[in-house]
Amino acid sequence: MSLDPFDWIDEEARRRADAGLVRTLRPRPAAPVLLDLASNDYLGLTRHPDITAAAAGAAREWGAGATGSRLVTGSTALHAELENELAEFCGFEAALVLSSGYAANLAAVTALTGRGSLIVSDAGNHASIVDGCRLSHASTAVVPHADPDAVRKALRSHEGRALAVTDSVFSVDGDAAPLPRLAEVCRTEGAALLVDDAHGLGVLGEGGRGALAAAGLAGGGGIVTTLTLSKSLGSQGGAVLGPARVIEHLVNTARTFIFDTGLAPAAVGAALASLRLLRREPERAGRARAVAAALYERLTAAGLTAVRPDAAVVSVRAPSADAAVRWAADCRTAGIAVGCFRPPSVPDGVSRLRLTARADLTEEQIATAVSVVRRTAPVS
Amino acid sequence: MSLDPFDWIDEEARRRADAGLVRTLRPRPAAPVLLDLASNDYLGLTRHPDITAAAAGAAREWGAGATGSRLVTGSTALHAELENELAEFCGFEAALVLSSGYAANLAAVTALTGRGSLIVSDAGNHASIVDGCRLSHASTAVVPHADPDAVRKALRSHEGRALAVTDSVFSVDGDAAPLPRLAEVCRTEGAALLVDDAHGLGVLGEGGRGALAAAGLAGGGGIVTTLTLSKSLGSQGGAVLGPARVIEHLVNTARTFIFDTGLAPAAVGAALASLRLLRREPERAGRARAVAAALYERLTAAGLTAVRPDAAVVSVRAPSADAAVRWAADCRTAGIAVGCFRPPSVPDGVSRLRLTARADLTEEQIATAVSVVRRTAPVS
Ligand SMILES: Cc1ncc(COP(=O)(O)O)c(C=O)c1O
Ligand SMILES: Cc1ncc(COP(=O)(O)O)c(C=O)c1O
Repeated sequence: MSLDPFDWIDEEARRRADAGLVRTLRPRPAAPVLLDLASNDYLGLTRHPDITAAAAGAAREWGAGATGSRLVTGSTALHAELENELAEFCGFEAALVLSSGYAANLAAVTALTGRGSLIVSDAGNHASIVDGCRLSHASTAVVPHADPDAVRKALRSHEGRALAVTDSVFSVDGDAAPLPRLAEVCRTEGAALLVDDAHGLGVLGEGGRGALAAAGLAGGGGIVTTLTLSKSLGSQGGAVLGPARVIEHLVNTARTFIFDTGLAPAAVGAALASLRLLRREPERAGRARAVAAALYERLTAAGLTAVRPDAAVVSVRAPSADAAVRWAADCRTAGIAVGCFRPPSVPDGVSRLRLTARADLTEEQIATAVSVVRRTAPVS
Repeated sequence: MSLDPFDWIDEEARRRADAGLVRTLRPRPAAPVLLDLASNDYLGLTRHPDITAAAAGAAREWGAGATGSRLVTGSTALHAELENELAEFCGFEAALVLSSGYAANLAAVTALTGRGSLIVSDAGNHASIVDGCRLSHASTAVVPHADPDAVRKALRSHEGRALAVTDSVFSVDGDAAPLPRLAEVCRTEGAALLVDDAHGLGVLGEGGRGALAAAGLAGGGGIVTTLTLSKSLGSQGGAVLGPARVIEHLVNTARTFIFDTGLAPAAVGAALASLRLLRREPERAGRARAVAAALYERLTAAGLTAVRPDAAVVSVRAPSADAAVRWAADCRTAGIAVGCFRPPSVPDGVSRLRLTARADLTEEQIATAVSVVRRTAPVS
């Protein structure tokens, strides 16, 4: 028996260091010093004066915290307002706001399944969906990425309740799920469909109404979607949207809703202001997509290997984890922040740079970004 | 095969209605209309002008959202400042801030265990700890409430890594865990100890430094604590505190840290302001405890059955779930908000009113609250 119960942690830290996989936090200052192509602030709203003013105003009016579970003291009229407007905007009957997108996925996956039911989950799904599958008492079939036939086969192997679950836009490669075909499979097999639209809201669909609206699937009786308020809406929090009875069911059964403090008023206020701004300026959604397309076109024209973006995420291949880390560091030195995804955060073990398009990037900023990423690319 | 994949939800809703267990949201207005004895705002800080101003200022200075994972763009110098001050205040080497206390517990429980290890978990632990146990690949032994001998026995039954986990103050009954004896058991058995101090921070220990400081255990090598920023600190978010190597380990491995957007700046700023206010006004902690003691004394003197509070939560027994709901509703009608806990949120099936003490309650408010709770009590 070891004397210190955490000695094993040093072992693991050494293994990580040997593999070059140590992650460290790099706190940033208040004023941006880098050109940001790494955040999920797709519409450029998180520092928009209307949005920060709404956050500030909500804190002053409603308090700094929600003070309790939404079921005790944590529900304000502001939460209800956001829920109504989110549901209406995205074309669903009802919505429920939670403290994060992570919590929203845990809530939806666990509350819509249970012992004896089957979850069919795309191999590329977000960690929070994977954790939701682990938390539910259902059995889970992980199916190959973006493969509706595999979903159908898995559903057919099971008697009883079933839920297929997928990201709408996969966060690593920025590719879209085949939603129309998945919905058709679910419909014919009698299964429910849960779509995590974290990277679709604000970017896809008319005026940014999201992937389900884009596919003509919003509001379908067997369809539920989860959102984050922390990406396009520039705030924090998550939501589940679906039929009213599903939302009531979540209020009554979802542990990450019931046993969690409500989302802070400032975050609710900011998300609501972003949603309203997006209604006033619907062109922001298309602009984010256009910026992503421009980044992709120019990077591939320069000989880099990238995935054609279906939304605002542009994924560029790196030859190795080491090379990806160096590449991202070189971009940073040259003034550009880009994401760097590598094992174990990538399901396929392939390292990449992850560039995010923002609706408010100027032509000049796009040109600078492309030139830096090109110039710093590893010679392969 | 049913035509609508959510028809089973109506069945469950009917069962809940028949059992009188339907939960509904009751959004509150911006200006308080009820005397609040239901929130977890133990120090009365969530509407304190310094705290809401700090939330507002942080949103304006740092943006409405963190914009990404703390490992990508989501770490600000403000997060680091809060982490340093939290660790120092509570007497630990290092701290890590997450988006909720729920996420902090999931992170700590999963990252500190793993396949082959044992978790020994108190039967009264919070839902987020229970979910952490389910998510980890460890085996879990649930032991009777507040029973260090049972913890020892469970630890002895296992070879290899082990973690004992407990709430410091149990949220339902407000009773404290026997931390000194638990720490001694863990020390002699070579196990780590994780303490969720959600209801201890700001209330227990000198100046509100928490349950570990109160027990002289803060900063111990095998000891880790989780906090919420959403109760005494009046904000939102959570934190894990412990040895620096444990915090580094979490940065590298905890899924609810890595794959979640960082806590919004407004929430970080509010929590930091509350912590600083608590340093300036350390008497708030003792005042919250004194208010709880006064509520307990007067309610039991009036013939009600309550649990002697170890912190700021006062739990009063109700004869049944129905009676508890009616009692809480009658209090509300009389202008007092109290919590109502009933199955399935209570592990023992006993329904109760849950009153929370606030440091800023006046003598007159305490008297009013006691008189209303007495007057509306069910005749048993
Ligand atoms: C696809 C997806 N789902 C869910 C989440 C979690 O959302 P949040 O960060 O708001 O918790 C994220 C990212 O963080 C995501 O990329
Ligand atoms: C004991 C305990 N731990 C953790 C939590 C979760 O904290 P948060 O609400 O900040 O997610 C709560 C309450 O919500 C709690 O009572």
